[in-house]
Amino acid sequence: MGRGRLWRSGLAASMLAGAMELTGRSMQRALDQILRRLITQGRLTVRWPDGGTATYAAGPGPRAALAFASPATVRRLVLDPALAFGEAYMDGTLTPVECGIYDVLDVLTANLGVRGRAHPALQLRTLLGRLSRRFAQFNPARRARRNAAHHYDLSGRLYSLFLDRDRQYSCAYFRTGSETLEEAQAAKKRHIAAKLLLDRPNMTVLDIGSGWGGLALTLARDYGARVVGITLSAEQLADTRARAEAEGLADRVTFELLDYRMMNSRFDRIVSVGMFEHVGVVHYRAFFDVVQRCLAPDGVALLHTIGRSDGPASTNPWLAKYIFPGGYSPALSEVLPPIERAGLVVTDVEVLRLHYAETLRHWRRRFAANRDTIAALYDERFCRMFEFYLAGSELAFRRQGHVNFQLQLAREQSAVPLIRDYVAEAERLPVPLRQHA
Amino acid sequence: MGRGRLWRSGLAASMLAGAMELTGRSMQRALDQILRRLITQGRLTVRWPDGGTATYAAGPGPRAALAFASPATVRRLVLDPALAFGEAYMDGTLTPVECGIYDVLDVLTANLGVRGRAHPALQLRTLLGRLSRRFAQFNPARRARRNAAHHYDLSGRLYSLFLDRDRQYSCAYFRTGSETLEEAQAAKKRHIAAKLLLDRPNMTVLDIGSGWGGLALTLARDYGARVVGITLSAEQLADTRARAEAEGLADRVTFELLDYRMMNSRFDRIVSVGMFEHVGVVHYRAFFDVVQRCLAPDGVALLHTIGRSDGPASTNPWLAKYIFPGGYSPALSEVLPPIERAGLVVTDVEVLRLHYAETLRHWRRRFAANRDTIAALYDERFCRMFEFYLAGSELAFRRQGHVNFQLQLAREQSAVPLIRDYVAEAERLPVPLRQHA
Repeated sequence: MGRGRLWRSGLAASMLAGAMELTGRSMQRALDQILRRLITQGRLTVRWPDGGTATYAAGPGPRAALAFASPATVRRLVLDPALAFGEAYMDGTLTPVECGIYDVLDVLTANLGVRGRAHPALQLRTLLGRLSRRFAQFNPARRARRNAAHHYDLSGRLYSLFLDRDRQYSCAYFRTGSETLEEAQAAKKRHIAAKLLLDRPNMTVLDIGSGWGGLALTLARDYGARVVGITLSAEQLADTRARAEAEGLADRVTFELLDYRMMNSRFDRIVSVGMFEHVGVVHYRAFFDVVQRCLAPDGVALLHTIGRSDGPASTNPWLAKYIFPGGYSPALSEVLPPIERAGLVVTDVEVLRLHYAETLRHWRRRFAANRDTIAALYDERFCRMFEFYLAGSELAFRRQGHVNFQLQLAREQSAVPLIRDYVAEAERLPVPLRQHA
Repeated sequence: MGRGRLWRSGLAASMLAGAMELTGRSMQRALDQILRRLITQGRLTVRWPDGGTATYAAGPGPRAALAFASPATVRRLVLDPALAFGEAYMDGTLTPVECGIYDVLDVLTANLGVRGRAHPALQLRTLLGRLSRRFAQFNPARRARRNAAHHYDLSGRLYSLFLDRDRQYSCAYFRTGSETLEEAQAAKKRHIAAKLLLDRPNMTVLDIGSGWGGLALTLARDYGARVVGITLSAEQLADTRARAEAEGLADRVTFELLDYRMMNSRFDRIVSVGMFEHVGVVHYRAFFDVVQRCLAPDGVALLHTIGRSDGPASTNPWLAKYIFPGGYSPALSEVLPPIERAGLVVTDVEVLRLHYAETLRHWRRRFAANRDTIAALYDERFCRMFEFYLAGSELAFRRQGHVNFQLQLAREQSAVPLIRDYVAEAERLPVPLRQHA
């Protein structure tokens, strides 16, 4: 046994011994202490495994209650909160009482703040996460495909039960906050199209991560573009090809099962919406090299991605395990260096704040409305997993510094107009802008 | 003598010996070789010290001619082009022939490209520059004040002879490109005011680097704000205080001779226009800590600064020596990390491309129109120094990746509206928006 392994196993043994000491009521006392320090807003009521209850109240703010099924759940939560919380909810050993999981997470995130300051275990996780994130985000082609399949090869029917009609699985654009999800997703596509400056007919567009095809089909139908969409999900590929045929757009839009790294052709425009989250920091340079290589000299690219405003961090371990293996939401400071090194010019950065929280609120409500159908399609545990994912993500955007970046990129400074007013002007034009050629 | 010094002095001696070998005609041959490789666009004609001429022509593009007064000038240019070129022009040992210095730099920058790829000496400089730039940009309070005095304590009369009437000494905002400098500078102030969301009367504003006071006075006069402007230039301070008195705004606008690091008060809004270029990368964290500390929790800040779209680099040594000691134009990748670490949220990034090139074109023309007056105020060498500065800067924005960033910052995501349309809407409102309270 090498010194490294010996040290690690020694450390693990001593941690385990420490953990074993803290069993049963002592673990409950530990969590009680943590919650007592943590809750400085709102109110959380906890029903312990032994039937006793405790209330952590600190004035105005959100309110929720939860119950633990067993001392084991309490112990796991103290030792590994970031992973154990979601797992306990999925397994039914942690249950919201007279409220939903959103309400429970609402109280917790209101008190955790942007960085999860209060819980030392969370801070340790963040530190370890930073050290390991380069490995967690190592996504060569084969793993990238497996990661995509994990989430996007879920039944297309599932996505039709909580997304908008066009199945836009990314941040919508809320002009007022009171519009429907359908309106906000249509506005998002218009906003992106405006920034792409599709000002000539038959412009060629590469859509990296084409999802269920809504954006590619819209750019072809309403803006006269010729689009190539690439995806790593076989389910999405079949679906989008069928949609292009059904809409009579198959001559203008083609979809391929292809890794972005394989692209070599030139396009007038490149767009990537909600795919960059799967790339991983170690591959950003490769990603932007592809954009540089595949973009015409006077071309324009638009990258729409989740990001975080509070600097580099690590992916929540529950989210990485159950929803997005290999995924990561970058800080702007992580996205800029590989763009500059690739020789691309950043021509604009829009930071969409709270739009994704609103989007997720709509998804969460639609999911709830169709819960029985989804439970029949999968099972109760799957539903709870998805609910936890939607609720946690919404709160990450409301409270924990998550935002959505739209980065407009070019090879030449002069590729976009002098001032940004062209975006709002294009958005005011009637749709469709062009008939097919 | 330590090994390091021995090695360095040995290296210096061998370099000197190599340089001495290349004297007279051999230096001319070296420069001839460099220009032969460099010029791939346009045409440059060179008159050598011995009276002979050479023309480097490569098809369409800008055209210019220059003459060298002595072999020493040729040698210095080969050995240290980035510094020697401007110095030779200032000293009159390098003279444009039947054209201006702008035309000569136009041909050279058209061929150098963004990174100055062709000239190995320039590349070596860039490398050394990166190593030394942390020292070059070390600007503690006393040095910061000396650096500011170097440029901004030049006669106020000088600046009135090439700037607009309001003496805005920063990038204007050209909505069309055909407006006057006065119009474009007024539009810049409106654009900044719109992003500052001065939507209540008597909002307090801190203006870091208040220059000749135009912005501070405008925010007070037209937007009902109460402004504190700070500067390190005694000349600017006297001038701005007199302006505030003369305009009857002294009760709403105060100016102080103060380093940004000294600020501790809270403001609703913070604005900094054309000052961040003097801060230096090593002090960015201190700068954004001041913004964080001095900004109200629901506050909004707007940073307007020159930057570069091609990644970190070093300040041109001529510019650092004669115009802006301690100055630096950062890449976005250098500005973002200290913002994130300071706990500020980036709510918007606008990249003003070519606006500063247009601004500098206006300044260059006004300078030329008032050249005799300026030469009487200073001397011929000063005029040539300023011409070189204005021409070189304009071309840095046209050809070498320089841009102007407007970063909008906040402490809370919700401090600014959901979508950016409020900027254009505010710009359409009539001015003045408010009467004084």
